[in-house]
Amino acid sequence: MVADRAITAENFDALMDFYAEDATLVVKPGLNATGKAQIHKAFVAIADHFKHQIKVKQGAMKVIEGADTALVIMETILDVVDVDAASTSITRRATYVFRRDTNGKWLCVIDNSYGTNLLDV
Amino acid sequence: MVADRAITAENFDALMDFYAEDATLVVKPGLNATGKAQIHKAFVAIADHFKHQIKVKQGAMKVIEGADTALVIMETILDVVDVDAASTSITRRATYVFRRDTNGKWLCVIDNSYGTNLLDV
Repeated sequence: MVADRAITAENFDALMDFYAEDATLVVKPGLNATGKAQIHKAFVAIADHFKHQIKVKQGAMKVIEGADTALVIMETILDVVDVDAASTSITRRATYVFRRDTNGKWLCVIDNSYGTNLLDV
Repeated sequence: MVADRAITAENFDALMDFYAEDATLVVKPGLNATGKAQIHKAFVAIADHFKHQIKVKQGAMKVIEGADTALVIMETILDVVDVDAASTSITRRATYVFRRDTNGKWLCVIDNSYGTNLLDV
């Protein structure tokens, strides 16, 4: 997925093209970023937190479409390097919501990489 | 939730008020119903399948809102009675997408009670 490559390359300006102006990103359970400015800032903070070693890969995916809206359920694999330079792989079942805008372009309106695990908190 | 009571009471005409005209319901993994006519038909078939003994209850819930769209993650408890009249409880972590229409009313556009378990199929 192009967005995964943009995250891995830390090309956050290009990444913002995937989001609607007033989209919401779940940064972590209980902390949301709303709007492109906040989302951009959150991605910069996440990259810093993982010492610029984060890699994002896509696994299995299902898309359900209704009323110009799409629910994307996607296995997201995060490869991160911890403080001891050890590599860890985290697999999440993410839920993304996209909407088709008036020009027919699909934009992400809700980015929740935690999926239904948000209920565990 | 009012929709749960409508399902339990098999009041499917009232239930349709919660859905957008071109909403999509995941009937079961791999089988979607799109549009109110198909969704209504699917609910009638589900009620028949469970011999009109199905009860729907709501557990924990999280709502994430962005761009006039809401992702609702909800524990859904289905009490069903099987052919031997034994009662079974099924708990799912459902994912619902709602959109605010031009009158400000929230309507369900995607109803996926299977949540991220769709990836298991």
